[in-house]
Amino acid sequence: VTDPATWSPRQFRDRVASGAWNHSTTGVCLGYTQANLAVMSHEYAFDFLLFCQRNQQACPVLDVVEPGAVTSELFAPGADLRTELPRYRVYREGDLVDERTEVTDLWPEEAVAFLLGCALSCDEALLEAGVPVRHLEDGMQAPVYLTDHQMVAAGRFAGPLAVNMRPVPAGLVARAAAVTSRFPSAHGGPMHIGDPAGLGIRDLADVRAGAAPSPRPGDVPVFWACGVSAELAARRAELPLMITHAPGHMFVTDRPSGLEATC
Amino acid sequence: VTDPATWSPRQFRDRVASGAWNHSTTGVCLGYTQANLAVMSHEYAFDFLLFCQRNQQACPVLDVVEPGAVTSELFAPGADLRTELPRYRVYREGDLVDERTEVTDLWPEEAVAFLLGCALSCDEALLEAGVPVRHLEDGMQAPVYLTDHQMVAAGRFAGPLAVNMRPVPAGLVARAAAVTSRFPSAHGGPMHIGDPAGLGIRDLADVRAGAAPSPRPGDVPVFWACGVSAELAARRAELPLMITHAPGHMFVTDRPSGLEATC
Repeated sequence: VTDPATWSPRQFRDRVASGAWNHSTTGVCLGYTQANLAVMSHEYAFDFLLFCQRNQQACPVLDVVEPGAVTSELFAPGADLRTELPRYRVYREGDLVDERTEVTDLWPEEAVAFLLGCALSCDEALLEAGVPVRHLEDGMQAPVYLTDHQMVAAGRFAGPLAVNMRPVPAGLVARAAAVTSRFPSAHGGPMHIGDPAGLGIRDLADVRAGAAPSPRPGDVPVFWACGVSAELAARRAELPLMITHAPGHMFVTDRPSGLEATC
Repeated sequence: VTDPATWSPRQFRDRVASGAWNHSTTGVCLGYTQANLAVMSHEYAFDFLLFCQRNQQACPVLDVVEPGAVTSELFAPGADLRTELPRYRVYREGDLVDERTEVTDLWPEEAVAFLLGCALSCDEALLEAGVPVRHLEDGMQAPVYLTDHQMVAAGRFAGPLAVNMRPVPAGLVARAAAVTSRFPSAHGGPMHIGDPAGLGIRDLADVRAGAAPSPRPGDVPVFWACGVSAELAARRAELPLMITHAPGHMFVTDRPSGLEATC
């Protein structure tokens, strides 16, 4: 049995489709871009695309799969988005109503599927640049906070900016900013460095998701825009039906994650 | 009478709206972002936004003005897009049918207006960095070429990539690439450096728009994605009605053009 970190995306997705893998994608297919998924009726797709365009740091669009298609030709030709993610969530009117391992029967005929960037590429780039990533050291998910910043609205999509936080040794904060700025599709550079109050965050223990951090002495809290912002706005919009990946159970694409920084 | 280069965008647009200015915006309100305009029915807006998202270097979106609105709250609060550009073009089924100085009566009720970035900010940044801009020295428009590269299609929008070219002294090519890469909303860094054949351009004298260049000895041709790409794709889509700015007669926004590079 080989290490999932070394599987090709195609090998990994085949196992998912066959039911042999329904766990998280953390640590799987290292070096390949993973994507958030959001599926909704074509009726709402223009407003959501515009919302993403207006809030690119929080909602970086990788690809949009048009009505009638279930494949991203740009990021994973041939992959079926209805079966090749390990776990999905189903929302109706903004309420989570189901979690399942395939959504073929639910996929609306006129559905538009959005693939959005996630912070994983930045985690890898930080490690390669010698910046420690505390939540990985602790084996946790990065802490997510709601801020008092409002995103720019579009149609029925609106809501507060959510951020995640990585504690960074003070001497490496500039490097962390420089490295992550090279990956705009993975949320890019920090939104805020230092005092949490600048974002309206009163207590770092009060996480919206992930785990409260355990900063080491000399660490500075550094905040990046977070994909939870898009999920929140989409839920608040109370669409009749929305399908997403389950947290941590992403779509593993064929796109090398270093590509963005070099071309 | 003061120099138009020093007018505020609001002063400039007031003169346009009152009919006192219907000339080009070249050299007007220096230091402020100018935008291309494309107005179309809401019916086509999702596909066009997606087309822009998939071809960001050629079609950088600054803002999208939603149905029922005629103002960009983000780039020029209070400005009326129907009267505050000095000159408009009107296309029906892809054919240019009219050129006029205001379009209030033509503006569809369900219109969506796209503001797209233009190369002007890059011209200014190059000059500030000590890189000569030959077409400005010659008092011409930059040459525009059609390439053999196809843009990524979306819905009915598709077509070849158009580029413009600036001849750059060989020793300054790296600097020109670095400087323009800081302005993704003004087409960003070069698509191609050197041999025109690499883009399928056989003859630099065969321009699609602008003026054939007069390179100085030691100049290297450097190619950037060009907003003409978006215009071509939109014309090829043969929309019942599309309104754009007239070439060189842009929308002057309130946004400082250096903003993108610093925040």
